[in-house]
Amino acid sequence: MKTYTASIIVSLRRAILDVQGKAVENALHSLHMQGMANVRIGKHIELDVLAPDIDTARSTVEEACAKLLANPVMEDVRIDIAEKAVGASA
Amino acid sequence: MKTYTASIIVSLRRAILDVQGKAVENALHSLHMQGMANVRIGKHIELDVLAPDIDTARSTVEEACAKLLANPVMEDVRIDIAEKAVGASA
Repeated sequence: MKTYTASIIVSLRRAILDVQGKAVENALHSLHMQGMANVRIGKHIELDVLAPDIDTARSTVEEACAKLLANPVMEDVRIDIAEKAVGASA
Repeated sequence: MKTYTASIIVSLRRAILDVQGKAVENALHSLHMQGMANVRIGKHIELDVLAPDIDTARSTVEEACAKLLANPVMEDVRIDIAEKAVGASA
């Protein structure tokens, strides 16, 4: 068994209005930071997963996303998996 | 002026207890998904920035992070900037 690190980005689908992003965009403009647009806010989830190989690790993480971490109706998920570097901080 | 897309990940520093991550980890274990650990939850922010070059775009985004998007005392920020693909959806 090896330890893999998964980096998951859960973001609202493009078609859905992101009110939080809109609020942040307005706040940026209030701070005189113009030139920024289309702010979208999502979640970033990082976790370690113990699996025999990278494909099993990916399918475990996909199952976790489908069951708990994301709403497949409203949200898109991007998953990056890499073997955990030896000596990396836990 | 060109349009760049910035992808920003704001996460709690390693030394700080991530209670939200801990709760998600416990929920995963309750769903009989063992083998997952060290869950950390952060924010993912995506925005378009108008700038003459990529260095100016990066410094604008760094300023936005310092002023509004992140708490530099408790959070780490990772910024990826790329030129926006022509024809990409807004």
